[in-house]
Amino acid sequence: MRQTKRRAKGQALEPWWVHGGRLGEAQAAFPDAPRPWIDLSTGINPHAWDVTQAGPVDWIRLPDEGALAALESAAAAHFGVDAASVCAVPGSEMALRMLDILDLPQPYRHMAPSYGTHAEALPGSIAVAQDAAGAGNGTLLLANPNNPDGRLLPAERLKALMAQGETRVVDEAFADAVPGASLLSGGVDDRLVVLRSFGKFFGLAGLRLGFVVAAPARLAPLRRRLGSWPVSAAAIAIGTAAYRDAEWIANMRAQLLKDAARLDALLHAHGLDPQGLCPLFRLIRLEDAGALFDRLARRGVLTRPFDYAPDWLRMGLPADDAAYARLDAALGAALADG
Amino acid sequence: MRQTKRRAKGQALEPWWVHGGRLGEAQAAFPDAPRPWIDLSTGINPHAWDVTQAGPVDWIRLPDEGALAALESAAAAHFGVDAASVCAVPGSEMALRMLDILDLPQPYRHMAPSYGTHAEALPGSIAVAQDAAGAGNGTLLLANPNNPDGRLLPAERLKALMAQGETRVVDEAFADAVPGASLLSGGVDDRLVVLRSFGKFFGLAGLRLGFVVAAPARLAPLRRRLGSWPVSAAAIAIGTAAYRDAEWIANMRAQLLKDAARLDALLHAHGLDPQGLCPLFRLIRLEDAGALFDRLARRGVLTRPFDYAPDWLRMGLPADDAAYARLDAALGAALADG
Repeated sequence: MRQTKRRAKGQALEPWWVHGGRLGEAQAAFPDAPRPWIDLSTGINPHAWDVTQAGPVDWIRLPDEGALAALESAAAAHFGVDAASVCAVPGSEMALRMLDILDLPQPYRHMAPSYGTHAEALPGSIAVAQDAAGAGNGTLLLANPNNPDGRLLPAERLKALMAQGETRVVDEAFADAVPGASLLSGGVDDRLVVLRSFGKFFGLAGLRLGFVVAAPARLAPLRRRLGSWPVSAAAIAIGTAAYRDAEWIANMRAQLLKDAARLDALLHAHGLDPQGLCPLFRLIRLEDAGALFDRLARRGVLTRPFDYAPDWLRMGLPADDAAYARLDAALGAALADG
Repeated sequence: MRQTKRRAKGQALEPWWVHGGRLGEAQAAFPDAPRPWIDLSTGINPHAWDVTQAGPVDWIRLPDEGALAALESAAAAHFGVDAASVCAVPGSEMALRMLDILDLPQPYRHMAPSYGTHAEALPGSIAVAQDAAGAGNGTLLLANPNNPDGRLLPAERLKALMAQGETRVVDEAFADAVPGASLLSGGVDDRLVVLRSFGKFFGLAGLRLGFVVAAPARLAPLRRRLGSWPVSAAAIAIGTAAYRDAEWIANMRAQLLKDAARLDALLHAHGLDPQGLCPLFRLIRLEDAGALFDRLARRGVLTRPFDYAPDWLRMGLPADDAAYARLDAALGAALADG
């Protein structure tokens, strides 16, 4: 019935079920929406690190091995591990899709709901609930903080689960925004693989840069697969400079907490109940989230619906005062429509 | 004995046996060499396409699916095939390292000598001579034009070999510089996979952009493995604009032929006999190529030696008059040393 109602009233939601960020499709599907669009469909930091600080990018040469090593060292220092445990990849999405070459013990399980690619990352993986106990063997893939619900499992609890013997692959794509969330503070051991994303916290998703952090021996087949030039010259130059920018990182963590509080206050003012502990996005639950997605899109505000949870809508942080004002007005009008 | 002589006389050559382009290591190994270095160690076009023509890069957003499709369409139009047969990858090196997921028929063979990664690309692959006949089954990986010797197999001969039933993976990383060399003029069939490189002909190796061209069904597992954002926003913006720049492409093909003739004349003047039909590099043969590599490096000119052929040295095109003059002087002094 919901599906019928949606189709009768507006656009099908399928294009936005797979990932956020499909702004081009939104512009085509809602041609009358006011521009510019306010894109809240992802959890990417709207306050990007200033790429001009990295200097001009040398597109001409093959990226130098020494420069790649410097990137992995800068990232390792930020993560709190040795550089030999860090392997740069062209985005953490591709890292997920290469997990099956890391020789992880079977059987495979993944906590659900979470980031969509998790269900496809390990062949034959079985979905388990978020409070699933360790199985004592095999491999469990989970995100922390989780996406889309922002649930945060304390590092101590995760470590206790690991003590039961299962190998853990922890997708920490959003961990930079939550100090203390990363398991890497305890170092890397043979039963831990951590995935990190550069683009989300630094607000540069177009760069395609991520990292797999694991014991050096486990990374060996991944490094072979990636070859000598796994990421672009820009990813190396910008990633190295940004990870070394400790002052920006500290200030941004504080800024994002303030931004999230501002978004919470706005949503509360409209009678909504935002959930989650990752400052880069909030999940709201309401009876027909698809209808709200549609009404916001008609007003040029793109959010993120979920096929498996028709009562969920995820919103990233607005970039500036104008974006908060657009969201405020759009929510007011959209909820009055309902 | 050669190894002893090399170590006694100068640097070991191992760092430059794997790939060209290790300029950082060269600067460290030959600290007294005059700067700037003249890097002839790769076959990358020294006249790069002007990236500013693509406009500013949007590093902030996730690359749009429509923009990725536009890149694959622009590349497909340049290759002469349908866009559904073209899959963008972060560099043709990584494409080689992902060949094993394309469900290619066994047994595997690769023509040798060729690009080093070919020997590792398909598990258990057996090296065969360059004039090997088709085996009637299985898969053969070869480069055309070949690297490092610049050997060019006419497209008609390659097609005749394919008619015998073997699947061919043709690494056309250097084919843009040689009009008529590409097998894609005959279209794609189920037994042909072609790898293309963006960075070599367009002189932008730091971008990390390449393509796998094959029947759409064969590309399906590769697209799954790469996910939604296989290449960076810069690769999409610059690649799309450059492939559409037909005038630059035509002019550059003519320019590279002139440059190669100029390099040939310079080498002949020093009594060397350059070989190959790819205008982006030449192979020279002389008794102790390692000694010449060392003597040129001491003069700030980086070339490419080969572990399996101590009488080979590959040179890319000098970028400008100053580089030709440096090479001329360095060759004169280096050969007088011998």
